[in-house]
Amino acid sequence: MPVPLTKESDVDVLIIGAGPAGLMCANALANFGVNVRVVDQRPAKVAAGQADGIQPRTIEVFQSYGLAERLLREGNQMHRAAFYNPGPNGGIERTGRTPDVTAPTARYPFELTLHQGGIEAIFLDSMASLGVRVERPIIPTSIELPTVDAELKDPNSHAVKVVLKHLDAAATEGATETEIVHAKFVLGADGSAHSWVRKSLGIAMEGEQTDYIWGVLDFVPDTDFPDIRSRCAVHSHNGSCMVVPREGDTVRLYVQLSDADVRDGATGRVDKNKFSPERLLDVARRSLSPYTVAAPHGVEWWTLYIIGQRVASQFSVHERVFIAGDACHTHSPKAGQGMNASMNDSHNLAWKLAHVLRGWAGLSLLKTYESERRKYAQDLIAFDKRFSALFSSKPRTHEHANGVTHEEFVEAFQTFGQFTSGIGVHYAPSSITHTAHQARARALAVGQRLPPRVFVRAADARPVDIHDMLPADGRFGVAVFAGDAPARLDTPARELDALLRRLAGPRGGVAAVFNVFTVLARSKDDADYTDVPEPLRPHWSKVLLDDTDMFGRSGGGGYDAYGIDRARGAVVIVRPDGFVGTVAPLEHLSEIDEYFSSFMVGPGP
Amino acid sequence: MPVPLTKESDVDVLIIGAGPAGLMCANALANFGVNVRVVDQRPAKVAAGQADGIQPRTIEVFQSYGLAERLLREGNQMHRAAFYNPGPNGGIERTGRTPDVTAPTARYPFELTLHQGGIEAIFLDSMASLGVRVERPIIPTSIELPTVDAELKDPNSHAVKVVLKHLDAAATEGATETEIVHAKFVLGADGSAHSWVRKSLGIAMEGEQTDYIWGVLDFVPDTDFPDIRSRCAVHSHNGSCMVVPREGDTVRLYVQLSDADVRDGATGRVDKNKFSPERLLDVARRSLSPYTVAAPHGVEWWTLYIIGQRVASQFSVHERVFIAGDACHTHSPKAGQGMNASMNDSHNLAWKLAHVLRGWAGLSLLKTYESERRKYAQDLIAFDKRFSALFSSKPRTHEHANGVTHEEFVEAFQTFGQFTSGIGVHYAPSSITHTAHQARARALAVGQRLPPRVFVRAADARPVDIHDMLPADGRFGVAVFAGDAPARLDTPARELDALLRRLAGPRGGVAAVFNVFTVLARSKDDADYTDVPEPLRPHWSKVLLDDTDMFGRSGGGGYDAYGIDRARGAVVIVRPDGFVGTVAPLEHLSEIDEYFSSFMVGPGP
Repeated sequence: MPVPLTKESDVDVLIIGAGPAGLMCANALANFGVNVRVVDQRPAKVAAGQADGIQPRTIEVFQSYGLAERLLREGNQMHRAAFYNPGPNGGIERTGRTPDVTAPTARYPFELTLHQGGIEAIFLDSMASLGVRVERPIIPTSIELPTVDAELKDPNSHAVKVVLKHLDAAATEGATETEIVHAKFVLGADGSAHSWVRKSLGIAMEGEQTDYIWGVLDFVPDTDFPDIRSRCAVHSHNGSCMVVPREGDTVRLYVQLSDADVRDGATGRVDKNKFSPERLLDVARRSLSPYTVAAPHGVEWWTLYIIGQRVASQFSVHERVFIAGDACHTHSPKAGQGMNASMNDSHNLAWKLAHVLRGWAGLSLLKTYESERRKYAQDLIAFDKRFSALFSSKPRTHEHANGVTHEEFVEAFQTFGQFTSGIGVHYAPSSITHTAHQARARALAVGQRLPPRVFVRAADARPVDIHDMLPADGRFGVAVFAGDAPARLDTPARELDALLRRLAGPRGGVAAVFNVFTVLARSKDDADYTDVPEPLRPHWSKVLLDDTDMFGRSGGGGYDAYGIDRARGAVVIVRPDGFVGTVAPLEHLSEIDEYFSSFMVGPGP
Repeated sequence: MPVPLTKESDVDVLIIGAGPAGLMCANALANFGVNVRVVDQRPAKVAAGQADGIQPRTIEVFQSYGLAERLLREGNQMHRAAFYNPGPNGGIERTGRTPDVTAPTARYPFELTLHQGGIEAIFLDSMASLGVRVERPIIPTSIELPTVDAELKDPNSHAVKVVLKHLDAAATEGATETEIVHAKFVLGADGSAHSWVRKSLGIAMEGEQTDYIWGVLDFVPDTDFPDIRSRCAVHSHNGSCMVVPREGDTVRLYVQLSDADVRDGATGRVDKNKFSPERLLDVARRSLSPYTVAAPHGVEWWTLYIIGQRVASQFSVHERVFIAGDACHTHSPKAGQGMNASMNDSHNLAWKLAHVLRGWAGLSLLKTYESERRKYAQDLIAFDKRFSALFSSKPRTHEHANGVTHEEFVEAFQTFGQFTSGIGVHYAPSSITHTAHQARARALAVGQRLPPRVFVRAADARPVDIHDMLPADGRFGVAVFAGDAPARLDTPARELDALLRRLAGPRGGVAAVFNVFTVLARSKDDADYTDVPEPLRPHWSKVLLDDTDMFGRSGGGGYDAYGIDRARGAVVIVRPDGFVGTVAPLEHLSEIDEYFSSFMVGPGP
């Protein structure tokens, strides 16, 4: 019997593209138990080079999925930035050192560098343990949305039709060459210039290319440059250069190139063939002089690029097809920001898809993906424009009286760093971000990620970061800051329990939807976890104390750090992506009802 | 052709017994590249119960072999101890809480609990990655040492003849049933009452059984006892009880039993068959009253034991056959000490065997195994006697005016804890422990483990614990505390380099034998790793600064904490097991020569 040439199948979420954005989404959805497929045109994962900077907030996100341990073990940590300007003798000299990251609340106050293949491997191994594998090499050849409004508005309809072509089908006997996939939702995470999904949907990129041409070079240097293991911003009379130390002994250099270096005189195009890693290294050598740099083991990877600063005009079509990562924003790689913005796009999207697919939230929840992430991408590019211009400018010297001073540059670096660390990301008020009772937790910004903080567990006095109480398992965190008098908790405990039971309805009980725990403003010397009413501590590990550990090495001061009154307390609702959704007074729990009712779908009769 | 019934083979080290002591040694030797075999009579590793407490020093040792990450992930952390005595109403009440561990310098200031099978799995997986597997089920049937002195004294002779019997040989077609192994060295790590190696060598156990009979019970409790997740010492009118929380929700109870409970009236013997886990739980319930305890999921594991407090009369025969762990000392399991002492025995032995096998040290180095570890075992048992007596005593009440007060007990608990944490272990002066220049590092005790301390790396300002600079790779650490003036380092650097080159000789160069790094008393704002002469920094990562990290979260104060003068400095020699071997003045490096010459063998012509 002949095998049919075209097979058809259904899936809840189809992800096109298995780079960092696609894999973050696929792993998160697999984690949440969502039916997901990932296809990619590449026959194998990336082996070297490409994006490699992981910002502090992204490390926190990896941690929330249980993936930080390996990331921290394999990556290089960048703690310090150093700045170099032309010195009196013509060569460069150090003008100062600062922390690489300006984010005092970061749990991991540094950037990590790890090549993109290493990052992809972390996701691929995690997904494999959950039974999800990337299917490759596969390309999509058509994508169609229904024209019938009713179908678009039914969250259960397999509304998106995608035709896939299996590129190695010829090699596999009996395999179908093309496949029609009916997906409830599709994510296009298929890269920048090449985003087939974005182009197929006719979504425009807004913004423009810059004139800045840079070369990138990965190699193991032999050098006497003393800051080769710090991130360095080097301004010399011979051009600008950025040093980014990487895993092992590898270093990445970003080298500013002149038009004459790389543009074809006739066509004006940048021609990589006319360049070579040796020439790139020569340019770097000139800007790092009087220090010497050699590449005795050769060059691991190199490329040229022109900075493009563009954002897609929309991030979604009818909340059925989404684009994420490079498919919807491109910016300066020097900030190491591309991969971070990409992964945080799909971290933002994944839980929303899961809640809609489970029937817990309406399709409108998905509108917040574009409103939150497109705004962020626009802000990022605005910052990037300022920083790139500054970085590509001449340093101020006798000849260049209008050049950039060291102080101006460091200030911009720090402002930019605060932004790109991801720590400062602040989503505007929306259905999932309610600021009404912000004053009850003055130092917690609703719409920002909950800052990490060490508390001690009441039951065993083990120090625990509150982030570890909030794994990215798709549930909302309900952190009951119950103050200093657990005896007064009976009424709020009963009320909160009744409310959460009603909201959860027949969805597997409160614990399936909500991650409830309690933080007391009490001492470990006499407080017991058994002091807390049972609904507020579903397990012995679910009561924390705002106190130090047994040796005073960590913990304490959490109520003050969050701006929560020790007598009055507050309930903090943490979104599944770790962002503060709302703050409610303990004596006014109806705010919690209002919050969830603004996007959750009633559990039905 | 018929297969010969007996095969013969050579090996450098044969380890008999694959419990914690045997596996620690096997993994360490595999790590050092030593030719090693491990045999065990059990067909598989332990699945549940048995020893399970990992003390702070042991966690440090696991860390030095790169095994702490998994241990910390899988084990339960015990941070706090709670004490209960009879209250005015007859039931118990809490008298106080303290840190579980009294060891302020511990890098991991808590105990871990993980079942023995989990600990063995960590070693087995590490060994497998190094190509070493436990052969089982195999028992030794004879062991012979040569009577010829010359053979005993030749470190290269395969002096020990052991006959092994493969218990499953019948099941494997063509396998030989018995095997003759000629080993250079043998380690008997084959348990307590059953140590075949110890008995075969005619080594006596000195000491006696006590009269204390205890029951042990592992289960997941349903209870309102508020300290169920702390280690608790409970003294009640109905007997003593100790609570040890374990991984997951499991708890171990140690319950004191009376003779009437467990001894056969006629024979006086303890009869486990006459007892049951239900009866044990009943006894526990009585001592924990008025709190309630149930075991709704049943009992995972239980046993009865009588505390034996005994030490073998010798730990070695002719420095050819050694015994370690339970084979040479038994004591109260309540202190969670057995497995720790066992693993630290073989941690002490492994590097010494490696150095002798490599021809770097003479056989006499191996004498320090017994002198260091037997003394420790004797001290441990002296402490254990006091503590067990105290723990089994009646609490002081109206009826028992001579009973133990809470204060007496807590003081003993803390003294004992300081000892058994392993942090306080202090080896006496010997060929590998020279105290002549102790005053140059006043707060570092020669003969104790180097205390952990965070410094920042000069090259990249990354905070690094000095323990992470000293992996257990078989090399001696040469920590050059070079003071605050690297410019003055040229002469000592040249002299030290010449000395280490001479000592290392043709053994693969200085780096094969010595792990050299430098610690400057300088600020990260202006110190560079390139300031240090090259022999004192074989890699960019080998220069540390006594300063805080970029956010002041860790680091700084290391010179003061070690009692090293910031102007004069000192060289600290750290043994491969992490213990301080000697301290030398920078201007008097001949001490280093004397130190190594007292046990190293000259490199020859």
